[in-house]
Amino acid sequence: MNSAGIAQAAATLTGALARFGASFSLGDVPEDDRHYAKLLALDLFGCALAGLDTEEARLARRAAHSLSPGGGGASIWGTGEAAAPGVAAMVNGTAAHALELDDFHGVDHSGAVTLPALMAVADTGGEADGKRVLEGMIFGYEVGRRLLDGAGGYRRHNAAGWHTTGTLGSYAAAAAVAKLLGLDGQRMAWALGIAGSFTGGTWAFNEDGAMSKRYHAGAAAQTGLQAAFLAREGFTGPAAVLEAERGGYFPLYGEGMTPAARSVAEGLGRDFRIGWAGVKVYACCRGIHSALDVALDFRQEHGLRAEEIASVHVLCTPVQKGQLGLALPKTRIEAQFSLPYSTAVAFLHGEAGYEFFTEKWIGDPEIEALAARVVLEADEGRSLEEEPVITVRTRDGRVFTGQQPVPIGDPANPVPEADIRAKYRALATRHLAPGTVRRLEEAVLALDNPGSFAEVRAILAARAERSGRE
Amino acid sequence: MNSAGIAQAAATLTGALARFGASFSLGDVPEDDRHYAKLLALDLFGCALAGLDTEEARLARRAAHSLSPGGGGASIWGTGEAAAPGVAAMVNGTAAHALELDDFHGVDHSGAVTLPALMAVADTGGEADGKRVLEGMIFGYEVGRRLLDGAGGYRRHNAAGWHTTGTLGSYAAAAAVAKLLGLDGQRMAWALGIAGSFTGGTWAFNEDGAMSKRYHAGAAAQTGLQAAFLAREGFTGPAAVLEAERGGYFPLYGEGMTPAARSVAEGLGRDFRIGWAGVKVYACCRGIHSALDVALDFRQEHGLRAEEIASVHVLCTPVQKGQLGLALPKTRIEAQFSLPYSTAVAFLHGEAGYEFFTEKWIGDPEIEALAARVVLEADEGRSLEEEPVITVRTRDGRVFTGQQPVPIGDPANPVPEADIRAKYRALATRHLAPGTVRRLEEAVLALDNPGSFAEVRAILAARAERSGRE
Repeated sequence: MNSAGIAQAAATLTGALARFGASFSLGDVPEDDRHYAKLLALDLFGCALAGLDTEEARLARRAAHSLSPGGGGASIWGTGEAAAPGVAAMVNGTAAHALELDDFHGVDHSGAVTLPALMAVADTGGEADGKRVLEGMIFGYEVGRRLLDGAGGYRRHNAAGWHTTGTLGSYAAAAAVAKLLGLDGQRMAWALGIAGSFTGGTWAFNEDGAMSKRYHAGAAAQTGLQAAFLAREGFTGPAAVLEAERGGYFPLYGEGMTPAARSVAEGLGRDFRIGWAGVKVYACCRGIHSALDVALDFRQEHGLRAEEIASVHVLCTPVQKGQLGLALPKTRIEAQFSLPYSTAVAFLHGEAGYEFFTEKWIGDPEIEALAARVVLEADEGRSLEEEPVITVRTRDGRVFTGQQPVPIGDPANPVPEADIRAKYRALATRHLAPGTVRRLEEAVLALDNPGSFAEVRAILAARAERSGRE
Repeated sequence: MNSAGIAQAAATLTGALARFGASFSLGDVPEDDRHYAKLLALDLFGCALAGLDTEEARLARRAAHSLSPGGGGASIWGTGEAAAPGVAAMVNGTAAHALELDDFHGVDHSGAVTLPALMAVADTGGEADGKRVLEGMIFGYEVGRRLLDGAGGYRRHNAAGWHTTGTLGSYAAAAAVAKLLGLDGQRMAWALGIAGSFTGGTWAFNEDGAMSKRYHAGAAAQTGLQAAFLAREGFTGPAAVLEAERGGYFPLYGEGMTPAARSVAEGLGRDFRIGWAGVKVYACCRGIHSALDVALDFRQEHGLRAEEIASVHVLCTPVQKGQLGLALPKTRIEAQFSLPYSTAVAFLHGEAGYEFFTEKWIGDPEIEALAARVVLEADEGRSLEEEPVITVRTRDGRVFTGQQPVPIGDPANPVPEADIRAKYRALATRHLAPGTVRRLEEAVLALDNPGSFAEVRAILAARAERSGRE
């Protein structure tokens, strides 16, 4: 980089983000956000431990033996195995996202891209403590969500074909690790530049449910970690990685240098974006959650039972119909993206937790019979931001119509802390003994305490005490 | 992946590429192409060894100590150090491309994305021998160039902002390693799917000459290697990674499902694309080479000397002017992308080799004085495929105009084998003793001989005997 480039860096968007990133500390973050960061970490570790059971995690872990033949110091959570930090981040990120149960409203899925990278660095370097991991997490969520909004927001940017867990997850992970490593503003901007200069993630998996969707979270964690390690040494990335006319993220992947793109670094330090992230109570694609809220509401308010239902009509956008319309899923990922299946589960069982998206329930005749009566109708004129409208007709001629504009898990409709903890326990119990489940919970909620952080690392690094229930 | 997905895979573009990839063997490749593959490997190893001197390689290598703290079995060429295979591929790919001297007309730079990945696998697995490395290389070049043509060709696809060394290099590297590992057609298609599902590379570096340009080659090598290792375990990638309406490479990064895109798998086995790759004799961006051919021709034919030149006018496209127009470069990468600087070097010194793009010559007053008299004029109406027209006016009123439609190094204007070998020797001599330079040359040119392959690996794995001349 020439001297003009260095002077210019501070004037670019990543330069401004990095200047803030290098200067804030945990004390500048409101207590609510700091506490919520710990709850998000708890939620993520629960998802990752339960995710160990998936084919995706199992195969990624097996590949890690070849990708990191000599071990490498960073733990593959819950396995007792270790790998080079980038490889461990890839496997843990893949596992954390494998159940589609991890947090949203970040890049999406900011937990699965930041925490695997941060913990892998903590396992292999002397720099990390729990306070720095929280700072890294908070800055990673900050950058990821701001860039998502700069690129047009989740729905528009993903509708275009970009899987932002990957494309923007790399930036979020780079920001997180750069903060953990204590890089100065210039090197932090380089880290963002290197990560964004080579980042990916597309929705091509949606056609056949390929496992690569989960890999995107892991690959983003790995990409960001590697970028931050390179930048620490002085390896330079493009200062204008976001705004360059030829090849900048917003012109090339996004919608150009719109007002939203130009303002991604405005108001830093106010309203931390980690508070905007949501916790999932249903184990399926976030786009389905509002329909499940409506279904559970009908079930509870009107005592509506599955056998009474003649049809469920879902008015939605063409993207929703294409992404969520499959009625009779055969695989986990197909089930997680099936609105008819998930809605049938909610009407029949009064919940839509993890178990219903496993082989235990997929193909269940009762669910399939109801799912076959759910019809999606796409309206070209609907805004991408609108939640679907659900209309249920009963066999005896009653009609119920509902729409949930703010589904459970949104910051405006938050999941109570007790429910987040309960979800974690249900997931973690699949692999950890009850005492360990409790110890990990207590330690994560005191992550900024040095002893607690060491305990979190030790529990995650150990071999799981149970092999999962499947 | 569901059963429909598996049946569908063979019908997709990557399915067709992979079916061919899994079935051909070295014996199906014409002897000319097999021999040329060895020359390309020789050229690449020379570039990589000389590339060790660069800041990019030095910093990437230092980052590798953190990225692969326990070593990992794959050699970082010329250093005596080792890393996990993905990390070694990243460092070696970065070094191989760092001097802008490696081959072109592939993805571009197919050697720097395939060979680092292939050799890293060979270092850490029992599967590899020289014959399989050549097969992998040939298939990697095949896939990379075919996809480039499917996306609109080098100039159009790069003009859009994609740095294809990265975006398509991942596919090329995945193809190469999948072939080396002997994956079947299904797993090979998954490898291409995983690689393409998360691949990157943008031209944002062009604004400030960031080092990330060289990293793209290494990151693509690493991405492809990792994808092939995952696919080997059964981890699935999207069958429609190239053509999916939402998120497929051609619709999303390219120009849609054009006839060129639809035909990327046609005629496989005829006219192997490795024969289309070119060797660089000038150490700068390929887009400048035709101007240097013209300059050297004027110099030789008309005895034209630098001091006689009043002005050099270059009629070109707006993309060329934007990419190559800087007159007074301060850094290596700026010099490599400066048409005025490179042309001045050619007029003054009768060549444009590696040394002229180092600190030894950058800033030379004589070169700068002539470079300042080179003016680029962009014509909106010119085709992106056209080479610039060079017009020289002398102080005594003579005018010479020339254009080289097929610059040296093109398959239609090939570099003689003796010159390729001489280039290799000049580069390798910077780090290896003369006897070792000769032994490596002989071994690479007999790469399909088991003893030779072991020797190549051993020489590359050893610590360089000289520290470079800078």
